[in-house]
This record gives sequence, structure tokens and C-alpha cells, in this order.
Amino acid sequence: MIAVYPGSFDPVTNGHLDIIERSASLFDKVYVAVLKNSSKMPLFSVEERCELIERVTHHLDNIVVTSFDGLLVDFVKKVDGKIIVKGLRALSDFEYEFQMALTNKKLDNDVETVFLSTSAQNQYLSSSIVKDIARYKGSLDGLVPAEIQNDIYKKLEK
Amino acid sequence: MIAVYPGSFDPVTNGHLDIIERSASLFDKVYVAVLKNSSKMPLFSVEERCELIERVTHHLDNIVVTSFDGLLVDFVKKVDGKIIVKGLRALSDFEYEFQMALTNKKLDNDVETVFLSTSAQNQYLSSSIVKDIARYKGSLDGLVPAEIQNDIYKKLEK
Amino acid sequence: MIAVYPGSFDPVTNGHLDIIERSASLFDKVYVAVLKNSSKMPLFSVEERCELIERVTHHLDNIVVTSFDGLLVDFVKKVDGKIIVKGLRALSDFEYEFQMALTNKKLDNDVETVFLSTSAQNQYLSSSIVKDIARYKGSLDGLVPAEIQNDIYKKLEK
Amino acid sequence: MIAVYPGSFDPVTNGHLDIIERSASLFDKVYVAVLKNSSKMPLFSVEERCELIERVTHHLDNIVVTSFDGLLVDFVKKVDGKIIVKGLRALSDFEYEFQMALTNKKLDNDVETVFLSTSAQNQYLSSSIVKDIARYKGSLDGLVPAEIQNDIYKKLEK
Amino acid sequence: MIAVYPGSFDPVTNGHLDIIERSASLFDKVYVAVLKNSSKMPLFSVEERCELIERVTHHLDNIVVTSFDGLLVDFVKKVDGKIIVKGLRALSDFEYEFQMALTNKKLDNDVETVFLSTSAQNQYLSSSIVKDIARYKGSLDGLVPAEIQNDIYKKLEK
Amino acid sequence: MIAVYPGSFDPVTNGHLDIIERSASLFDKVYVAVLKNSSKMPLFSVEERCELIERVTHHLDNIVVTSFDGLLVDFVKKVDGKIIVKGLRALSDFEYEFQMALTNKKLDNDVETVFLSTSAQNQYLSSSIVKDIARYKGSLDGLVPAEIQNDIYKKLEK
Repeated sequence: MIAVYPGSFDPVTNGHLDIIERSASLFDKVYVAVLKNSSKMPLFSVEERCELIERVTHHLDNIVVTSFDGLLVDFVKKVDGKIIVKGLRALSDFEYEFQMALTNKKLDNDVETVFLSTSAQNQYLSSSIVKDIARYKGSLDGLVPAEIQNDIYKKLEK
Repeated sequence: MIAVYPGSFDPVTNGHLDIIERSASLFDKVYVAVLKNSSKMPLFSVEERCELIERVTHHLDNIVVTSFDGLLVDFVKKVDGKIIVKGLRALSDFEYEFQMALTNKKLDNDVETVFLSTSAQNQYLSSSIVKDIARYKGSLDGLVPAEIQNDIYKKLEK
Repeated sequence: MIAVYPGSFDPVTNGHLDIIERSASLFDKVYVAVLKNSSKMPLFSVEERCELIERVTHHLDNIVVTSFDGLLVDFVKKVDGKIIVKGLRALSDFEYEFQMALTNKKLDNDVETVFLSTSAQNQYLSSSIVKDIARYKGSLDGLVPAEIQNDIYKKLEK
Repeated sequence: MIAVYPGSFDPVTNGHLDIIERSASLFDKVYVAVLKNSSKMPLFSVEERCELIERVTHHLDNIVVTSFDGLLVDFVKKVDGKIIVKGLRALSDFEYEFQMALTNKKLDNDVETVFLSTSAQNQYLSSSIVKDIARYKGSLDGLVPAEIQNDIYKKLEK
Repeated sequence: MIAVYPGSFDPVTNGHLDIIERSASLFDKVYVAVLKNSSKMPLFSVEERCELIERVTHHLDNIVVTSFDGLLVDFVKKVDGKIIVKGLRALSDFEYEFQMALTNKKLDNDVETVFLSTSAQNQYLSSSIVKDIARYKGSLDGLVPAEIQNDIYKKLEK
Repeated sequence: MIAVYPGSFDPVTNGHLDIIERSASLFDKVYVAVLKNSSKMPLFSVEERCELIERVTHHLDNIVVTSFDGLLVDFVKKVDGKIIVKGLRALSDFEYEFQMALTNKKLDNDVETVFLSTSAQNQYLSSSIVKDIARYKGSLDGLVPAEIQNDIYKKLEK
């Protein structure tokens, strides 16, 4: 069973990494798919975001990090996937993710979205919070993997 | 009893149309009122949005499609209306719409907001979702009336 | 247009009364319909609950206070009604009332549920809260109409 | 991958059946596990509930219908399962199911809960609603499979 | 400033203990007030619940463990308190606690409710979950303090 | 005990003022701290927002109005504070504020966030609503203190 875990990952957090690891243990192959969204102003380029994810997922051998644009269901079909994985944190996630899951099911009935509950300690963690904290030199320990913390501080200095 | 159904309608969806039809069966006259909101960047102009609504409501003879700016309660009063109709979808709607209903009641105690529950199949449908799908040539069947689907595809090609 | 406002009303509160008054100004006739629910242990009998509602709605001449059992949509049809009125307070209300509205629409597509937003000062008021406070002789001012406060205190003394 | 779909199933609804079918297409084997909960007063006995589920899942060959008591994670381990499947409907589900998912992860870190979003038309469907409607002879079409509707009507006549 | 932390505490959990400790560091004196609620069937008697709380709060010297019945605001006034402390976990808590806070403010405008956010690892912890797990001999580590775990297992054996 | 009440206050509303007054009665000293957020386009400058707050809090002698940028916990520490005060209105507030409270606790475990429930009549009031109404010359009575209403109308005329 091939799964796709889509997101902005700007940058990848411990919450994302937790979902990646758990997906990797559930499915045969997991595409971590970085969305090219031209309408938002990301901190990191798509290429940088992919590189950061690769750096923290070296220990997982059934993960492919890639980027995509267009409809998610089209990408899932292109890689012979059947499953979209999403992590659910708090309430606002729930509403939006449900909307997307039902929409994707309407667009392609063969694609199934499965939700994993974000671990307790990551419930309220988001890429935005990470950037807010890093901007003012707050500690990122426990929020993002140690090996990418400096990339975030440096990027925000510019 | 005269009712006003306000919104952005950028563009009108099956969810909006469902609320329009149900309002038309409940009230003597229903103004479908397109908000001129200068602070947002709409896909369709106010005139185009009115035209699209008119095209899909020809079968209803107690509907008036129009636009307005300023305070909603002032518009309601101007057309001798007493009721504001809103469709409720999911949770985020609920919070914001409640805030607006209580605010409008404060501004004009004679105006009453009534909420209709969006039908199950339209629960997670929004103009934004429609535009996201159309942008990548996904199918709009079941999301917007057939007679306006091409207008949306064409507008997004430009 | 004939509307039905169903509920337990055990006992009627200022929140209920607010919805009754606003419904009476919106619709030609409003049935305030007390649910005979054999599975719950009410404080007041169905007859007592009807009597309390009648006592506080004497100023409204298009209100009929009555009781019903069976399916709500069957009762609505029996009285030639087309509309079910519900007041929405807080979030838990929203979920349950939506479920009922969609279910009732499925059972009888001609019956429409309209929701009115409970006024700010009644947002968190419920019959249960009223009984909890009355049990310990707390003040009911602002929570239930003055003319029925003694009935509640007396009933809870027994 | 072996999955367990636990629940009360009193009785099984179209919403449950939808989750069973989608789980069966995602996982190698799915245990539909009826909870023996002595503290609630079910309408159908555990044996009856299992029989009703079996009757509507004959078309699925990787489903095992069974019952369990004790901790869910212990049952999952006993059948060599790794996954708990839950359908998410509306908000109240979300809160409770998250609580259970995090608790089960704490009790056994090897067991993963995956959530499937209930289809739009089943969003507000529950066994309780089904019983309320059946009690008053309302139509169960679209709510429970045709082949078990009479069992529900009959059981409630007694 | 004297504060009151009311609850059922049937039994006290790590989540309660966290709120007790944080309240003790914020206020001069904190009454941990066990509600005598005759309408519920508790597992532990009021006396037992007080004793369990005392056993796990020996390290705090500005805590008084006691029980109360009647209106909470009356108890707060009796002990010269000004503040009600409540821990907020998830969404359902929020609704109910807000209702109670506004009601208590109505009953006594001098009493203020302050909410503390439950720590991430305790977000989904409740006395009910603890009892469900203990009933089937699941591990209570991380859920309730070690020194009262046996009391819970023993009580549920009876 | 020194507390900090942070916010955008663009402009201060009756809802903010209510929280300020209640905080002032709970804590020895309260810093009302206006956030310098360069990424948003405020209506009033930081200096103007401070001046408006000062104008409506002259009756409170343990309030200090000031501005800050950087991490909130750093500001709290700088003024020897221990408590962050936040008013909770509706659901969306709850989610975001919880996220911030848990994040701030992670950044500095000595700082505690306490939430006060916004009064019923201010539940749905926000600075954005105030500006929307003022833009169209709607009445601000009951929404912002009388002495600053003209400042808001004038600023929006420009």
C-alpha cells in the first residue's frame, strides 16, 4: 500500500516527523509531498524544504521526499498511491482537513484519507509557531529536530 | 416577509443555490445581496457574480439579485427587509456567523438573522474549494451548477 | 407560515422566552411544543410545563402551547406547519441540532429547520443550570421570568 | 496489516458499513469488534449485534465479526493487529476519539489509531438517531441496510 | 488572594495535581474543594477522595483539602475566597466551564474564575479514563500519582 | 504578583477594558502590553494604541500601559512578571490561545497563563468588528468606551 503525506513543511517540525515515522511503519511506501503553492510566501523554497525533510528522515528507508503542484488526487494517482495521510492536531485542523478529505473523495473515490492523531506533546506545534519563536531567538528544542535548527535561525536573520 | 441573503458568491456554489431555493420557499421575497468588499481580491467582479447568480436562479420568481456595500443592516432596512438568511456549514462558520448575528442585532434590533443548515452533501463546499479545483481542471460536477462551470474555468485561465 | 418550536422546557427560561417572542414576530403562528419524553425524569410534568409557558406568554396572541410525542416531523405536518424553530446557544447545541435538522429533513423534505441565535446574555443559560441554582436557593433573576420563580423553588423543596 | 474496528454497533448503521467497507479495502484483515459493555443498556444483545453485522457484510471476505471485553489494546494484540480504525463524524466524536487514541497509544505504543472521515451523507447518522426514528415507525431508508430494518422495528415493538 | 479549586476528584489524577501545584504557586491559599454531589454514583466516597488528594499534596503547604455542597459561590464566600480555579482541557470542558463561569459571575460578581491550561501530556486525561483503564488492570503510570494507584485497583475489585 | 496582558488593541474595546479591570482587581500590578507586530497593517500606531488605552484606564492605579516586541515570555521576565492574562471569547480564541499558552510554558516554565472568560455581552466583540462598523458610521455604543469613539471614526475617514 502506497501512501502520500502532503503538506507545506515550511519548515518540517517534530510533529511532521512523528507522522512521517508512524506512516512509514504502517504503509509500504510513503511519499512526503511538499506542496508548491505559489500564492503563499514561504520562508524556505520548495527545494530547501525537501532537503530539510530528507536530512531528518535518513533513518527511514521507505520514504520518498518530493514536491508537487496541481490537484493532490492527481499526484496520488501518478505515484500509484491509494492513501493520503494527514496528522490531526486541534480543532481548526479538523474542520479544514475534513473538508479536504471529502473533496478529494469526491474528485477520486479510490483515494482514501486516513488521519493520525498528533502526539500529545505536539498537539499545539506548527510551522508558524516555530518561525515566530526562531525570529526572536527563542529555543527550538523539542519543536524541530536539532540538525535543522540552525538553518531556521539563519534563514530568519537575512 | 422580506429576507436578505448576503454573501461574496465568488462564485455561487450548489451550497448557495440550495439556501437560495429554500429561502425562496420560506419568505415572500428574497434579496440575494452580493457584498462589494474592496479589501478582498475577488475572482469575479460584483457584476459578474450577480450575473452568475441570476443565470442559475431563473426558476425562482421571488428572488432579486443585487449588490450592496456599507452596513448590512442598513441595506436590509432600505429594502424593507426584516430577516437576514445565512447558511451554516461547519464549525468555523458557526463562530463567525454568530458574531455577525449578535452584532447586527445590536446595530438594529428589528432585524433578525435566521440560519438554515447546509445540506449534508454541501457541508464542506465553499467558493474557495471550487476555485482551487477549477484552477487545476478538476471536475466541478456536484459543486456548482453546470451552466456556470465554463465561466469559472475560463476566468482562471486568464 | 406556521412554525413549531419544540423542546423540553423543564422549566421555560428567559432564553426560551426570547426565542418564542422572536419567532412570534417572524411567523404567522407558532406552536410551542413540549416533548413528552418518557425516558427522562423531568422536574415538572408535561401539563405543568405547558402551564408555566402559557403564564409567561400571555402577551403573545399567535402562540399555541401544546405537547406532543412521536416524531417531530409528524407533529409539524399535523398542525400544517412548515418550519421548526430552534435556538442555538453554544457549541454542543450546534452539533446536536444540526444532526436533528438533517435527520428531520431526511424524514420530511418539506419541513425546514430555522435557527435563531440565542441573545448574548442567554448564551450559557439552560434549564439544568436554572434547577441547579434553585436547588440551593440561588437567585433566578435574569434567568427565568419573575412570575414562575416561586414554582421552581417550591417544586425543588418537595 | 491487521486492523480492528471497535464499536457498540447497536445496531450497525450505513455509517458503520461505509467504514467497514473502506477498511476492508485498505487492510489485509479487519476485525469488526463489538464491545461487551455491561454498564450500558443496549437494545440488541452482543450476539444479535454480531449477527446483524455479519448479515450486511457477506460481500466482504477479509472481515471477521467478533466481540470483546477488557482493554481494546489487549484485544488488538491478541489478534496480532496493529491498527485501530475509527470513523470520525462530527465534533464531539473528535474530542472523545482523540482522548481514546492518545490513551491507547500510552497503553501500547505499537498500536496505531487511524481515523477515516465519515462520508458526507452519514455525517450526522448514529445508532441513537436510528433507534429514535424506528421507535415511532419513521423510515430507516438510507440510514441502515434494508435487510436489517425489520429487526430494528420488531425489537422496539417488544 | 484566596482561591478555590472545585471538582469531583473521583479520583484525583496527574492532571488535577498539576493544576493544584500551579495554583499553589500563584495564590496565597488554595482550597481544593471536593463536591458532594448526591445525584452521581462516585467510585470513592467524599472522605476517601479528600484523603487521596491529601496524600499526594503533602509537599504543598498552602493547600487545604475540604468538601462542600450547595452553590460554589457560597462556599467561595464562606472561605473569604475571591477566585475559582479551573483547568481547561479540551473542547467540551471549555463550553461547560464557560457556562459555569458566567453563571457564577451572575450569582456573585465579586468572584472571578481563572482558567489554567492543562499541560500537553494531560490534555486528554480524565478520572473516567483512569477508572476504565484500572478496571481492566491497565497501567496507571503517568495518569495518577504512584502512591494512590493501588487504592484505585483495589476499589474496583470489590 | 505582577501580570502582563498582551494584545494588539487596535483599538481597545469594551471587552479589553473588562479584562483590564478584572485583572487589576486580581493582581498587584498589570502591564497592558501592546504588541509591535511589523507584519500586520494596524489602523492605529503603537503610540496611538497606548494613548487610547491610557485614556480609558485612568481610574485604575495599578496598570502600566506599554509596548513590546520580541518573545512575550522575555517581556514578562523583564518586568518581573509571572502571569500572562488572556481573555477567552469564543472557540477560535480558545484554540489559538491554548497553543500560545503551551508554547510560552515550554519557552519559560515559570510563566503561567491565566484565562478570564469574557463577559456575556462582550463574547462576540472584537477590534475588527469595531472597525467594520465604524467604517460605515454605525454606532459604537456598548462596543468601545465613549471617550475614544471619535478617534476611531476620524481615523477611518482619512
